[in-house]
Amino acid sequence: MAFTRLQQIVDRCEDFPKKKVAVAVAQSRSVLEAMKSADEQDVATAVLIGDEAEIAAKAEEVGLDLSRHEVQHAPDPEAAASLAVRQVSQGGADVLMKGHIHTDDFLRALLDKEHGLRAGTILSHVFVLELVDQERLVLVTDGAFNVAPDLVRKAQIALNAVYLAELLGMSEPKTAVLAAVEVVNPDMPATLDAAALAQMSDRRQFTRGIIDGPFALDNAMSELAAKHKKLSGPVAGRADIMLAPDIEAGNMLAKAHVYLAGGSVAGVVVGAAAPVVLTSRADTALSKLYSIALAVHMANMKRDQKIKLGRLHY
Amino acid sequence: MAFTRLQQIVDRCEDFPKKKVAVAVAQSRSVLEAMKSADEQDVATAVLIGDEAEIAAKAEEVGLDLSRHEVQHAPDPEAAASLAVRQVSQGGADVLMKGHIHTDDFLRALLDKEHGLRAGTILSHVFVLELVDQERLVLVTDGAFNVAPDLVRKAQIALNAVYLAELLGMSEPKTAVLAAVEVVNPDMPATLDAAALAQMSDRRQFTRGIIDGPFALDNAMSELAAKHKKLSGPVAGRADIMLAPDIEAGNMLAKAHVYLAGGSVAGVVVGAAAPVVLTSRADTALSKLYSIALAVHMANMKRDQKIKLGRLHY
Repeated sequence: MAFTRLQQIVDRCEDFPKKKVAVAVAQSRSVLEAMKSADEQDVATAVLIGDEAEIAAKAEEVGLDLSRHEVQHAPDPEAAASLAVRQVSQGGADVLMKGHIHTDDFLRALLDKEHGLRAGTILSHVFVLELVDQERLVLVTDGAFNVAPDLVRKAQIALNAVYLAELLGMSEPKTAVLAAVEVVNPDMPATLDAAALAQMSDRRQFTRGIIDGPFALDNAMSELAAKHKKLSGPVAGRADIMLAPDIEAGNMLAKAHVYLAGGSVAGVVVGAAAPVVLTSRADTALSKLYSIALAVHMANMKRDQKIKLGRLHY
Repeated sequence: MAFTRLQQIVDRCEDFPKKKVAVAVAQSRSVLEAMKSADEQDVATAVLIGDEAEIAAKAEEVGLDLSRHEVQHAPDPEAAASLAVRQVSQGGADVLMKGHIHTDDFLRALLDKEHGLRAGTILSHVFVLELVDQERLVLVTDGAFNVAPDLVRKAQIALNAVYLAELLGMSEPKTAVLAAVEVVNPDMPATLDAAALAQMSDRRQFTRGIIDGPFALDNAMSELAAKHKKLSGPVAGRADIMLAPDIEAGNMLAKAHVYLAGGSVAGVVVGAAAPVVLTSRADTALSKLYSIALAVHMANMKRDQKIKLGRLHY
C-alpha cells in the first residue's frame, strides 16, 4: 500500500531500529529542533558535527538532550562537512543532513571524488507533496538541485523519482512531464523534451515506471481537466510524479503547495550512496521532521531487493 | 482601494454601462455559458461571431437568450477571428474573446499588421489569483503568452502587469522577480535577469512600480519566510506581482493555485489596443466570468488619465 500522508512515513520508521543522521555544521537551531522531534518520534538520532560550544548552546535553547546524540567537534565548516560525509560513507551514519553551511560548501564535500557519496547516477532532489483535498502523495522533481537539465538528465531525474515513489509503495509510478501546455509545440522546448521522454517510455526504453507528456499541471493532476482536453492513457490526470522542466518551475510548484495551498511537504536528495536532507531555514519544524523521516525511510528500505533504480536504454 | 476578491471586479462592472465582448468563433458551449452569466451580472453582452446555426444550437443547450446579444454569421474560423478583431478595432466592441478556435489562428488575426490590435508594446498575459488565506489578489505573469522572454521582454511584461495592478487599485505595485532561490547565482540565468531588473528599478529606470528580485516564491509571498532569509525592502514577502522566469513556471504557479489550493483565478492579455480574454475549456464557468469581468473592468478604466503604462529607460 502506498503512503497517503507524510505522517505515515514517520510512523513507519518506528518499525525499524532508529537510524543515525550525520549533520554537517550542526549549530543550527532549526536543525536541532527537527532532530529533537525525530528522536522523540523514534525516527533517528544524530551525529552532530560542528562547533561543540555552539551546538551545546543551541541545544539548550531548543531543549535538546545532547546525551541522546553524538557530538563531534569540528569548528571549521568545510572540515565539518567532510567529516559528516565520511561518517556516512564509512557506515557510521545512514543519512546525511545539511546544517548551517553554505550549499556550495556542502555539495563540494558531498560530491568529493575520493570521499564523497557519488553512486554512479546523478543526484536529484524530490519534493513529496501531501495533497490537501485528496488522500495521496505527489512527487515533484527537480525543484532544488538540477538547474536546467537536458533530455538525458531529465530521464535520470525521472528515474530517481520513480525509485523513491516505489520505496513509498507506489507500483509502476506514473510520471507526467510538465510544460505550460499539453500539445507538442516546436517553439516550446519543454514540450519537445516531454514528447521524447513519452515516446521513450512507449518504446519501453525505461526499465521502470511509465512516463507521458507534455501535460499542463491541470491535466496532469485532475482527471476532469484531462477529460476536457480529451487526454487518455494511464498518466493523464493521475500522475504520481511531476517532472518539472527546470528548477524554477519545480521550486515554485512545491512552494505554491505550501504557501498558496497550506499543504505539507518533505524533500530529499536521491541518487547518492545515501539519502541526503537539505532543508531551508524557512521550512517549518514539521516539514523538516517529514524530510528526515523520508530520508530515514529510504535508508530502511535499502535492502528491499525488488526495488531498484531504473535505467534508460538508447 | 484595491480589490481583494474577484467577485468585487464583477460587482464593480455594474457601475458602468454594459460593455460589448466580440467573441471569435462563438460556437463554444463554455464561452456561451460565461457570456450568459456576464449578461446576468450586468458585466457585458456579446457580439457572437461564427457559425450561426451552431451558435443557435449551443445557445439553446446552455439557455442563452440570443435576443440579448448580437450574432454575425462567419462560418470560416479565420474569417470569424478577423471580423471579431475588426469589431473591436473599429469600436463596435470593447473586449476581444477567443472562442472555439486554435490559438495560432486567433493570434494571427489579433496581431495582423493592418487590422490587428497591436498598440506599440508587447502583449503579455496576466493571471489574477484570489488568495485563499489572505484578503488580497496577486498577479502572476506571464504564464500563457510569452514562452521564454529575455531581459527586455521581462521588463515589458512587468510593466504590463503593473498597469493592470494599478487598474485594480494597487498603488505603486510591487513586482517580485521569481526564481528558485533568492540569491544571485551566476549559474542560474533567471537570477541574473532578476538582479538586472531589481537594479534598474533601484536606479529609477522604470517610470511605474517597484521591482525587486530574485525571490523564491516563499519569500516573495510570505513576510515570515522573507524574515527568515533576512530579506528587506518593500517587495519581500508582500509582492503584488509575481514575474515568472518563463511560461512553464508561470503557468504551473497559476494552476497550482487552482488545482492544489482550490483557489479562483482570472486571466487577461494586456498590451493590445483592447483587453483580450483567452480562456481554456478546462476553466470553470466562474473563472471564465471573472476573466470577462477583468477585461471589461480594464475597458471601463481606460479613460482614467492618471493610470498609464510605464516605461523602461536605458
